[in-house]
Amino acid sequence: MLIVPEREIGALMTRASAFEAVEKVFAAMASGEAYNFPVIREAIGHEDALYGFKGGFDRAGLTLGLKAGGYWPNNLAKFKVINHQSTVFLFDPDTGRVAAMVGGNLLTALRTAAASSVSIAHLARRDAKVMGMVGAGHQATFQLRAALEQRAFEKVIGWNLHPEMLPNIETVAEEAGLPFEAVPLEGMRAADVIVSITSSFAPSLMAAHVSPGTHLACMGTDTRGKQEVEAALLAQATVFTDEVAQSVSIGEAQHAVAEGLISEDDVHQIGAVINGSHPGRRSDEEITLFDGTGVGLQDLAVAAAVVDLAVEKGIAIEVDV
Amino acid sequence: MLIVPEREIGALMTRASAFEAVEKVFAAMASGEAYNFPVIREAIGHEDALYGFKGGFDRAGLTLGLKAGGYWPNNLAKFKVINHQSTVFLFDPDTGRVAAMVGGNLLTALRTAAASSVSIAHLARRDAKVMGMVGAGHQATFQLRAALEQRAFEKVIGWNLHPEMLPNIETVAEEAGLPFEAVPLEGMRAADVIVSITSSFAPSLMAAHVSPGTHLACMGTDTRGKQEVEAALLAQATVFTDEVAQSVSIGEAQHAVAEGLISEDDVHQIGAVINGSHPGRRSDEEITLFDGTGVGLQDLAVAAAVVDLAVEKGIAIEVDV
Repeated sequence: MLIVPEREIGALMTRASAFEAVEKVFAAMASGEAYNFPVIREAIGHEDALYGFKGGFDRAGLTLGLKAGGYWPNNLAKFKVINHQSTVFLFDPDTGRVAAMVGGNLLTALRTAAASSVSIAHLARRDAKVMGMVGAGHQATFQLRAALEQRAFEKVIGWNLHPEMLPNIETVAEEAGLPFEAVPLEGMRAADVIVSITSSFAPSLMAAHVSPGTHLACMGTDTRGKQEVEAALLAQATVFTDEVAQSVSIGEAQHAVAEGLISEDDVHQIGAVINGSHPGRRSDEEITLFDGTGVGLQDLAVAAAVVDLAVEKGIAIEVDV
Repeated sequence: MLIVPEREIGALMTRASAFEAVEKVFAAMASGEAYNFPVIREAIGHEDALYGFKGGFDRAGLTLGLKAGGYWPNNLAKFKVINHQSTVFLFDPDTGRVAAMVGGNLLTALRTAAASSVSIAHLARRDAKVMGMVGAGHQATFQLRAALEQRAFEKVIGWNLHPEMLPNIETVAEEAGLPFEAVPLEGMRAADVIVSITSSFAPSLMAAHVSPGTHLACMGTDTRGKQEVEAALLAQATVFTDEVAQSVSIGEAQHAVAEGLISEDDVHQIGAVINGSHPGRRSDEEITLFDGTGVGLQDLAVAAAVVDLAVEKGIAIEVDV
């Protein structure tokens, strides 16, 4: 089997490669060639940790396996290691033998950024100029960096509940040579694309804060009860997601569905747009909204890509098991 | 992290060590210190394979992780590797980082044998003399070898649907210096302990084939629809299991419960007997029946034991991840 340690991922994995892997597996999910297994997520009653498994199989890419790990809230304070810890295990789908083990921490950040970036590529207006960020934590920097590559943006605007964190994303805008402006939520009306990446349990972005023609990627809601945007916004928008079942149960769409504003049938797979079986954006006035819930197949796809890159560069550790 | 390859397990792991690990984790399950996560089991639609994850956490032994793998029915014919393929991954419960990877094929056979053997140790009559085997496949040899260590048996009797396989277990009896006799199912009335290990979908062993005072370990039923013994036998016996929820849904008890012969409350955790909170066998006439369904915590327990042994002997492969 091959091992790609966490420390190697940064030098190996590119945003382009993550984009390609995630786009491909979203397409395979929509065509029925790839599916995610039920997610296991357990509060284990030790160190306040959440631990679990996200697995799946992609018959097109022949990628089988799981991401295992979770959230250890005391890690940083107690052990000086990051709180989100995960590892991806890939199996040979022909024999069931373990094929690879890949550090999953940076990959998780990259695949989450790739997801909103795939949604921008396929759903934002071609002439989008203003990029809006709701949220300015560590993950927001990944989302913004990937988003800025999808259109010829001329400006970044940002809002965060704690404004002292805005320099995180301001730095990314500067790196891309773009001006940055901190705005109140009302200021998001100027954005052509908005990525929200918060861990909020109440909506920040309201329908009145979003202009016609905007593309939104809501990336923060992955648990029952979390919410980033007003449910009414989903009723006004054409809603896309990675996986419909997750979107309506633990994703941003859970609230609009629960309130009867939209039904499960109103939530479309982004993969259908990639495959061409859904037209995607139909006008410059349409609001499109991508509900990114995060699926195991994304993790497997980027992990498989990184294994290929590691083999190419002679970095993969081979262990005879 | 530490890696213990499949090829090393045979020389490292002992039946005594598997017994101790399984007994301890059954006890922890009954005391509420250890629990299994929901099992993921998927027919992936490739090579007719069944693939999945069995995870759990033992707060007493601080063992966290999963066994991943499954059943690839074409392996032997196509690739000359065994059809059951699994790997155990252990995580550091303090940080969520991967701690060890252990080949799970032989371990699965050993932990399954350890389970029936723990049940014999705690539930069979002290003076048991005749050991009965229903089933004579590859796994039956593991069950018998472990069972024979629990009492001063004087004879082994065996039945198998295909009698030409009986030499498998006859050899094990001979190794232990015991006479072996092939018997019809009625002949099992002579047994003091019976282990059934078949993959049958209809009962072989009927209530009339079992004498008072017998201890039975039913080890073959791990799926809805499978059945080794007549449901009426469970109504006559005091029923124990590794995990009650599995016993009544996918274990041998599923049929007796479905027919209303027993209820979930009649199925007791073997760990309660180990802990002393259930008296276990109460008379020499009582029939005791252990429904071994197989849980992830057993796999984690034997894997953790093998990692300790591998470290002791300097065999564990250390990889800096």
